[in-house]
Amino acid sequence: MLKVAIVGASGYTGIELLRLLHGHPEVSVTCVTSEQSAGKNVAEIFPTLRSRYNLVLENLEPVRIAERADFIFTALPHKAAMEVVPTFLKLGKRVVDLSADYRLHDAREYAAWYEPHMNPELLKEAIYGLPELRREKIAEADLVANPGCYPTSIILGLAPLLKKKLVNPATIIADAKSGVSGAGRSAKVDNLYCEVNDGFKAYGVGGVHRHIPEIEQELSLLAGKQLTITFTPHLVPMDRGILSTIYAEPAGEVSLAGLVELYRDFYHGEAFVRVLPENNFPSTAFVRGSNFCDIGLTVDKRTGRIVIVSAIDNLIKGASGQAIQNMNIMNGFPENLGLESLGLFP
Amino acid sequence: MLKVAIVGASGYTGIELLRLLHGHPEVSVTCVTSEQSAGKNVAEIFPTLRSRYNLVLENLEPVRIAERADFIFTALPHKAAMEVVPTFLKLGKRVVDLSADYRLHDAREYAAWYEPHMNPELLKEAIYGLPELRREKIAEADLVANPGCYPTSIILGLAPLLKKKLVNPATIIADAKSGVSGAGRSAKVDNLYCEVNDGFKAYGVGGVHRHIPEIEQELSLLAGKQLTITFTPHLVPMDRGILSTIYAEPAGEVSLAGLVELYRDFYHGEAFVRVLPENNFPSTAFVRGSNFCDIGLTVDKRTGRIVIVSAIDNLIKGASGQAIQNMNIMNGFPENLGLESLGLFP
Amino acid sequence: MLKVAIVGASGYTGIELLRLLHGHPEVSVTCVTSEQSAGKNVAEIFPTLRSRYNLVLENLEPVRIAERADFIFTALPHKAAMEVVPTFLKLGKRVVDLSADYRLHDAREYAAWYEPHMNPELLKEAIYGLPELRREKIAEADLVANPGCYPTSIILGLAPLLKKKLVNPATIIADAKSGVSGAGRSAKVDNLYCEVNDGFKAYGVGGVHRHIPEIEQELSLLAGKQLTITFTPHLVPMDRGILSTIYAEPAGEVSLAGLVELYRDFYHGEAFVRVLPENNFPSTAFVRGSNFCDIGLTVDKRTGRIVIVSAIDNLIKGASGQAIQNMNIMNGFPENLGLESLGLFP
Amino acid sequence: MLKVAIVGASGYTGIELLRLLHGHPEVSVTCVTSEQSAGKNVAEIFPTLRSRYNLVLENLEPVRIAERADFIFTALPHKAAMEVVPTFLKLGKRVVDLSADYRLHDAREYAAWYEPHMNPELLKEAIYGLPELRREKIAEADLVANPGCYPTSIILGLAPLLKKKLVNPATIIADAKSGVSGAGRSAKVDNLYCEVNDGFKAYGVGGVHRHIPEIEQELSLLAGKQLTITFTPHLVPMDRGILSTIYAEPAGEVSLAGLVELYRDFYHGEAFVRVLPENNFPSTAFVRGSNFCDIGLTVDKRTGRIVIVSAIDNLIKGASGQAIQNMNIMNGFPENLGLESLGLFP
Repeated sequence: MLKVAIVGASGYTGIELLRLLHGHPEVSVTCVTSEQSAGKNVAEIFPTLRSRYNLVLENLEPVRIAERADFIFTALPHKAAMEVVPTFLKLGKRVVDLSADYRLHDAREYAAWYEPHMNPELLKEAIYGLPELRREKIAEADLVANPGCYPTSIILGLAPLLKKKLVNPATIIADAKSGVSGAGRSAKVDNLYCEVNDGFKAYGVGGVHRHIPEIEQELSLLAGKQLTITFTPHLVPMDRGILSTIYAEPAGEVSLAGLVELYRDFYHGEAFVRVLPENNFPSTAFVRGSNFCDIGLTVDKRTGRIVIVSAIDNLIKGASGQAIQNMNIMNGFPENLGLESLGLFP
Repeated sequence: MLKVAIVGASGYTGIELLRLLHGHPEVSVTCVTSEQSAGKNVAEIFPTLRSRYNLVLENLEPVRIAERADFIFTALPHKAAMEVVPTFLKLGKRVVDLSADYRLHDAREYAAWYEPHMNPELLKEAIYGLPELRREKIAEADLVANPGCYPTSIILGLAPLLKKKLVNPATIIADAKSGVSGAGRSAKVDNLYCEVNDGFKAYGVGGVHRHIPEIEQELSLLAGKQLTITFTPHLVPMDRGILSTIYAEPAGEVSLAGLVELYRDFYHGEAFVRVLPENNFPSTAFVRGSNFCDIGLTVDKRTGRIVIVSAIDNLIKGASGQAIQNMNIMNGFPENLGLESLGLFP
Repeated sequence: MLKVAIVGASGYTGIELLRLLHGHPEVSVTCVTSEQSAGKNVAEIFPTLRSRYNLVLENLEPVRIAERADFIFTALPHKAAMEVVPTFLKLGKRVVDLSADYRLHDAREYAAWYEPHMNPELLKEAIYGLPELRREKIAEADLVANPGCYPTSIILGLAPLLKKKLVNPATIIADAKSGVSGAGRSAKVDNLYCEVNDGFKAYGVGGVHRHIPEIEQELSLLAGKQLTITFTPHLVPMDRGILSTIYAEPAGEVSLAGLVELYRDFYHGEAFVRVLPENNFPSTAFVRGSNFCDIGLTVDKRTGRIVIVSAIDNLIKGASGQAIQNMNIMNGFPENLGLESLGLFP
Repeated sequence: MLKVAIVGASGYTGIELLRLLHGHPEVSVTCVTSEQSAGKNVAEIFPTLRSRYNLVLENLEPVRIAERADFIFTALPHKAAMEVVPTFLKLGKRVVDLSADYRLHDAREYAAWYEPHMNPELLKEAIYGLPELRREKIAEADLVANPGCYPTSIILGLAPLLKKKLVNPATIIADAKSGVSGAGRSAKVDNLYCEVNDGFKAYGVGGVHRHIPEIEQELSLLAGKQLTITFTPHLVPMDRGILSTIYAEPAGEVSLAGLVELYRDFYHGEAFVRVLPENNFPSTAFVRGSNFCDIGLTVDKRTGRIVIVSAIDNLIKGASGQAIQNMNIMNGFPENLGLESLGLFP
């Protein structure tokens, strides 16, 4: 049994790790931390865990944690992560970090969008953990930077097209919509039920959302050239789910049948990417509670644009599920272990 | 008092007309029809109306209706509308039609997207009833085609830019999101609570939604040249509201301050269009229950694209409120009469 | 025009007062206060008000407010209200207080459920402002204690039965369900969208909710004898609305027809209480956005118990709408002025 | 591997069986039926199942089904179930029936609440499948009548008190609230998103809901005497979950600590009943997606009444999960096999 610690276990990605790992046959969670709830039982914070978990949340003392765990999930806010990850690595632990701290390869980019990086040398070592694109490197990594939720949906949605150079990389627009859990569990008026319910809004309009550099880094690598995108996030009155509607102009002649075939081939054998048949499009309702990314696409006959729609559960394939998928790969477990639940519908 | 009939009063636009007209000082609703609920009191179908309305739904017999009403709202499905509107006109009544039947100027377009038109000669007479663009013609019209909900949000969002030729008309993408009331009140599995709640999806992807010809007709008129757009509608788990996120590439140099100024000027004096300050973007939650269209916009500094976000209540500015606004104009009433309610928040 | 101040205007009852008073022909809001948002425009906090209100939130300085307003709504938390209400009264202003501070007649009760009262002498003067029970006293009062939301629904639901001594007062159980806006607008994890959405729970179980003394005080007055009730509040994932299901054992023989008749008589002429026909029961969806209290009732043939179901919009008949109704009465305005909107459905 | 057929697989309990059985190591689903969707792949109807199920829905031909399956779940409407269950039994198959057809022991009761029973002799054989009360009989049964959702929550909530004769059985009131999936997947206006969302209502008020005879039958057996209850169901705007708030007067002296102890003892060793600590009460949000029944209780100090709150996921412990629990017992599998998922929160 792999002994696992969850650092920052009182947020939504923390509880999701606990929920999913409960069904993982090779893992035992030995240690959970939370600054604000230290001393409380996890089942007190998250009554879903009652009678199945009996763990007390601790303060974040890396050395003491490292004594009891061999594998670490850091589910902390950015900055808090880079304060502790190096210690865990020095202590010989392998880490999947769910924050943004190790996703960008370029420390200047990190500084431009966040703040100066505290251990920029690790940016070279960290592997951006999108298994469908980088499985072999993940397997050998000590530090995996778990992708953001919006980036996961957009990169998986565009990867086949960019890799095959079938779209003009200057024309990409990603109009993305997220459930409210993406905003985390901190007490803010903006995320109160009555502020969100029965309403829909855009936010971070105009190229200011911090997921942009991460998306552009990965899309540029796929395209083989630097590109920029227009990205607009929106807030949907629902708990979970991200749906990204992505627009791009084809680089040459394309057919819908050909594109679907391309996507099928590209994702052939992938356990968690489902390419939908022609004229089928995903809904977040059909991936809720699962680690799937569903992708549908079409060509707008009148304007010629390609439209790709991809959907994930932001807390699973967009966070904790993908983190466990990475952990499985890093430890030589079957990649789908603990992740085989189907979506909860309705 | 203007005697008004609502033909097709048992759907969501029908009840919304009743609700809004209850507060209109110059109007008396004398007649309501419904094929499926004829014989029932409207308050039985819509208990919100209890103790304030005491009207029995009738079968749709135009001559008998015309005896008791001088002004007609037809809130019928397309095709059903064009079966009765000519009769009302011949009987000397003025009509605001909430269906799609008289929105397109070109009968071939109507045939291509719907079916052959039964009275194509009326397409020349009917005025597309967007007051902000066509107030004078509405005032004198006998037949006003009330705009669709998606078109209202998109046309108002783009009008200033197209009119001033500030965008490349070949680059328009409208990614629109609607609450569920837009789907009407008919019993379909797809619109059941459990099918919609806590999920988000695209539909009509790839240039197939019937609002497209209407949007393109009006945008082309504004631009002074024929254009096509990419339009993707989505379904939001909420009752009311449409938010359209619209992308276009500028035709030349633009500044954000200049654009906001342009929109302010363009909509100066309009009672129901609110241009938001820079860096403010609308939410459907802030127009719910009101006749407002809120518009925010920005320029994406990294890609240069203009992004416009517009929000309406689909049942009010997107349907029944705009219909009453048109009625007010046609009858010389103050345009805001009966429409001054502020949004219901939360 | 009556010059009105809203003290505590940045919460949900504050904005609801602003929204409703916008349509009131005899009132002008001259002054709004908020401790945490002083200096901001109300339309910045509540964008629904944009282009219709242009008021800056001020600090709470009673003397300066009293210079500009003749009538005061205090929409403050309990305790904060009793710190300022006496000053307004001394300055000759009339006050409707929406907090709990003046609802209980007995200072010991207030101390037992809240804390020691700062001006207990006012408890004798204040009138509990349920217009249907106490219209004449409200008309002459200087200080009206606006009833709580749960109490409004329960007292109106039981008044006819208790007044006529048709139920055994020892057998009353009120199982009540509220939308989330009842919890106010403060930033608490418990009220985050993701904590509330798609879930249902009881809270304050076992006789500990602070609305109990207020309910029992009024029910005891109606019954002519002291009574206690079992009251369980629940949280419904919706913005607005309270529905109370009330159980009581009849004191003697009763018939359903007789009970409906009794309720019809009791509430005859009331603008805002609708007694539903036999076998009809209310939904909060049908009172949302209106000042109505809908009441349906039946007799369980198998157990003999009377079951009463009453529904209100907690922010309107349960708070701001009732406050305006009281203001209308106190100022000799028609009681329904500004309150005639029908429910927003859907 | 046990070969299992799901008869009536296109409703919400059908898909829930498929979802849960996907994770069951001892079961293979070989056959699914649906009258209205015969010929379609289950993944077409329920896209959550894509890439994990490849089963075509068939017409209901019992003999052909029995050739390919050894164990049958009938997830049909009442009446449709009793038309086929006898055939499956005659063919030597064991059946868990999720309809109401075999829950009542008395054919006259069934006739009074439903219609004349077609095979009343089976009512004696069928075992009411609440494992916590009747595990041994279930193990040997050929036909298990799977309990209704409301009954499961109420019977588990009251069993310890009635068994120990600690409450007056004439005083029981169950005020129950259900998510919308309880209404099934048929296309009815009443269950449309816009009719349900953001509203709360009672229905079946006054002793008319068909779950009453089933609840009373089981409670009477526990109490050792015939009793009647007052039961009011309500509709909550959420997908899943039932929460029952149950009131009863104690038969003698009781203490809260004693009651919690009693419940703990009564349910000791039960995998799926969680008795909460004093002053903790359940939420449907904490059992959503799991097979748990959470129970909290208290004594109202002021009125002396006992208040019990129980919560389940109506589609799992209230239907498909309990059906699988029964299947596990009938086949000698560990009772929790395939049912160990924790609740999905948020």
